Amino acid sequence: MVEPISNEEVCFSREKLDVYGDAHPKALLKAIQEEGDHLKNLAEQHIVSADQFTRDELLQLFRLSAKYEGNPERFSSPLKGKILISAFYEPSTRTRLSFESAWHRLGGDIMSITDRSTTGIAKGESLQDVGEMFNNYGDCVVLRDSNEESVRLMMNSLRIPIINAGNGTDEHPTQALADLYTILKWRPGLISDCENTPKIKMGIVGIPNKMRTVRSLLKVLAIFPEFFDEVTVFHDGSNTQVFDEGQIEHLQNKGLNVSVSTELYDKLPELDIVYINAIAWVGNTFESFGDKFVLDSNAPLKKDAIIMHPLARGEELSTELDTTSHNWYFSQARGAVFLRMALLTCMCQRTERVMDIV
Amino acid sequence: MVEPISNEEVCFSREKLDVYGDAHPKALLKAIQEEGDHLKNLAEQHIVSADQFTRDELLQLFRLSAKYEGNPERFSSPLKGKILISAFYEPSTRTRLSFESAWHRLGGDIMSITDRSTTGIAKGESLQDVGEMFNNYGDCVVLRDSNEESVRLMMNSLRIPIINAGNGTDEHPTQALADLYTILKWRPGLISDCENTPKIKMGIVGIPNKMRTVRSLLKVLAIFPEFFDEVTVFHDGSNTQVFDEGQIEHLQNKGLNVSVSTELYDKLPELDIVYINAIAWVGNTFESFGDKFVLDSNAPLKKDAIIMHPLARGEELSTELDTTSHNWYFSQARGAVFLRMALLTCMCQRTERVMDIV
Amino acid sequence: MVEPISNEEVCFSREKLDVYGDAHPKALLKAIQEEGDHLKNLAEQHIVSADQFTRDELLQLFRLSAKYEGNPERFSSPLKGKILISAFYEPSTRTRLSFESAWHRLGGDIMSITDRSTTGIAKGESLQDVGEMFNNYGDCVVLRDSNEESVRLMMNSLRIPIINAGNGTDEHPTQALADLYTILKWRPGLISDCENTPKIKMGIVGIPNKMRTVRSLLKVLAIFPEFFDEVTVFHDGSNTQVFDEGQIEHLQNKGLNVSVSTELYDKLPELDIVYINAIAWVGNTFESFGDKFVLDSNAPLKKDAIIMHPLARGEELSTELDTTSHNWYFSQARGAVFLRMALLTCMCQRTERVMDIV
Repeated sequence: MVEPISNEEVCFSREKLDVYGDAHPKALLKAIQEEGDHLKNLAEQHIVSADQFTRDELLQLFRLSAKYEGNPERFSSPLKGKILISAFYEPSTRTRLSFESAWHRLGGDIMSITDRSTTGIAKGESLQDVGEMFNNYGDCVVLRDSNEESVRLMMNSLRIPIINAGNGTDEHPTQALADLYTILKWRPGLISDCENTPKIKMGIVGIPNKMRTVRSLLKVLAIFPEFFDEVTVFHDGSNTQVFDEGQIEHLQNKGLNVSVSTELYDKLPELDIVYINAIAWVGNTFESFGDKFVLDSNAPLKKDAIIMHPLARGEELSTELDTTSHNWYFSQARGAVFLRMALLTCMCQRTERVMDIV
Repeated sequence: MVEPISNEEVCFSREKLDVYGDAHPKALLKAIQEEGDHLKNLAEQHIVSADQFTRDELLQLFRLSAKYEGNPERFSSPLKGKILISAFYEPSTRTRLSFESAWHRLGGDIMSITDRSTTGIAKGESLQDVGEMFNNYGDCVVLRDSNEESVRLMMNSLRIPIINAGNGTDEHPTQALADLYTILKWRPGLISDCENTPKIKMGIVGIPNKMRTVRSLLKVLAIFPEFFDEVTVFHDGSNTQVFDEGQIEHLQNKGLNVSVSTELYDKLPELDIVYINAIAWVGNTFESFGDKFVLDSNAPLKKDAIIMHPLARGEELSTELDTTSHNWYFSQARGAVFLRMALLTCMCQRTERVMDIV
Repeated sequence: MVEPISNEEVCFSREKLDVYGDAHPKALLKAIQEEGDHLKNLAEQHIVSADQFTRDELLQLFRLSAKYEGNPERFSSPLKGKILISAFYEPSTRTRLSFESAWHRLGGDIMSITDRSTTGIAKGESLQDVGEMFNNYGDCVVLRDSNEESVRLMMNSLRIPIINAGNGTDEHPTQALADLYTILKWRPGLISDCENTPKIKMGIVGIPNKMRTVRSLLKVLAIFPEFFDEVTVFHDGSNTQVFDEGQIEHLQNKGLNVSVSTELYDKLPELDIVYINAIAWVGNTFESFGDKFVLDSNAPLKKDAIIMHPLARGEELSTELDTTSHNWYFSQARGAVFLRMALLTCMCQRTERVMDIV
């Protein structure tokens, strides 16, 4: 018999353990001037790749995200009457719930597809026909699929916007946007006072050609190359090629100073941001990389360094770090909901309903 | 590495490719006098079979559907506070999303069951008990099951309405209603000016005793036999019996001129409507019929002929026809959402909330 | 071909067969004085075990449940804007729909997880991390898991409330609360006029150490031991130990007069309440106990005895009893939705929105 439960065990606190509260979104709000016009472009685009955004679109998107995050109770259902088709052909709970929570917070309705085998695809239906079907049923689609091509095939017939929530090992653009949003909440001076704000030394522990989060993240960082002193990709040496052909050059041509290394612990004391990801979904299973790399309380982190991780995590990121000031990965996950709220508001042409508030 | 995305690729248009817009629903609205009383009967019936409707009920239902389709933005949540139990024991995305979209558009809430194995049925629970349970949880049920008897067993205990969304190879009544709605939007003169409107020569490529869409469709056509000069069922000859015993006689007794043929291409130039379906779900798998029949740009279609297909489609209906004026199958899918909105409004006793609008 | 449907078959009545209507909730409402302050405690607790409630909390909870059940149409969405995470890692339709219906009736939004294999847990993610993730996405969690420890592990990081909807063979507290609510609707005199109200002789057919419904029920009965003359647990003798070590003593120490017997039919004529459950989920399958015990129209029930069953039922409870006055199991299922509505309202700190009504 399980021990009877004590009163202390069942009581809980709603107070956030995270000491950052809403100070960071509010600081970012101040750092960016409002120029809502740039958001109009986002009403007519599918969101497929982290490459497709301009600097101004991203700054305004982050500003709207910070407005949502700083005032979560104040917005009155801008997506009322809108229907989201949440299609996760590749399983996910975290990303699916992040999008669905964002859509619910905005007052919209949702239809979920979580089992690829129940769809017409199992009957041989083309993805173009699936897109044509979705046109009739909803106002926006979010799609994750192990098949890298699905989102582009579906786009051929879609007359409603689609967000790529992960297509094979290719991209996961909203994760990357949420990640840069987190970085700017941490150091808003990069926008408001670039000259006097120290550039970031960032380490990314992961495999850029196998992890869509890393591929997209590097692309997003390359939109603001001047924020970064150096971005170093750390891997454990077991993959000979960690970049696809042309991938690193594409980033360097945009001005991002990208390097590669296998010696994480040597460089750790210099890094301002350590971004770590160990899991890659490849097909129907996941592979774990970087057993060799573990961040725990022994890691020689710089005092003010922050750690980011797209989650879910395994042993590569120890829970010992959760209660330290290095922990920005929980804040990263929370901010992602507000980033998605901002993006979805724009894509559904409802920006005007939220622009004058605050 | 996937090619970087271009701006042209990500931009999309919300403009409907379908040139018909709302002209057709509006024409149908004019063709039918409003006599809302007939809809009251639909507040107290389970929707099980295409046989169960009267002419007047259908005309008023189509009128309400056309009202919804002509003015999709104008209706203020007649099903607010109502809960739909969306039970798809046999997998489906298209029909499930069509119903769920309709319910959301009307402002209601939804609970979905998409996995038969999670239900009490797996524990040996009777369908009558499932019905009694549903009485407590929702206001309306939509059920699809490979087991033909499930809907009738559940009806024994239900005190809320149920819609049969497909029971084995038996019926799929709302699909048939949506199909006739489409036909009348295309030729509303059949109602408003019957004498001077040419009767329809219709071909149905499919197997009436194996395809529930076809079985239900023939029953619905037989409610308005005077609209049709002839309805010819085309099959490829591999099934000896395409009708169940008594099935064709039942239709002919109602005045529908039904014939059977294996020579589609010979008759194609005379047909006003070609309805084609190749897939039948039998048990847990699907079978494809009519490999022999393919409609593509070479098919000798009458100039003004329209093609209908319940979708999902395979090779029997070529995408070459999508951009031609023969394509009424996309319009058919879109109209089905509005037909379901109209039916659900009636069944949940909320007709009075929409009757005075427009 | 299935026989054509007749009009009688498709017509149905919304009138409740259950003759009790709202008389019983209204009688219970009168029997309990309103002292809403006691409900405030429920705003800060996870609901894990039937042990954790005080008498006053339960009486006020039952009062609010009765208010909801007596006036189902009158409440205006107290949970508007709140999101429920409905996580059923162990399959269920009945309990899941009961909670989801309750949440919808209160005007809230829902995200469902019905497949454990799609979650990060499949990737090795800890339950604490799942809890931290849920903090960002929703306002309340309902969890069912075959793994008994999951709810407590998740509680370590949750800053939103969680309800245990069944953890292995341990507990199912809301079912037990709903069961006592049913008993008090049946005999409200136990509260308002305890001295003159006959104490209950209750039989429970089930295995307390294998059935979480029974384990939790006994705990809840032990909060009001004075209501019961005797509570006898009936089993078929095939399990040597029907109680875990200390389980029966824990109940007896609280003043509940618990006995054990294998002779149900001998004692049946004395019992006021017969609570029967035959199915226990153990791991991923269910076991059926009590083949030996069947309640049907031959059972020597006391004239005014009532039967309760958590459902789903099998052969142990015959449908012959459904139309008799012994049938309180349907009322039990219906009342459970209102009990959950009351509990969820409290847990989400929205009690003040419903307290002045009626």
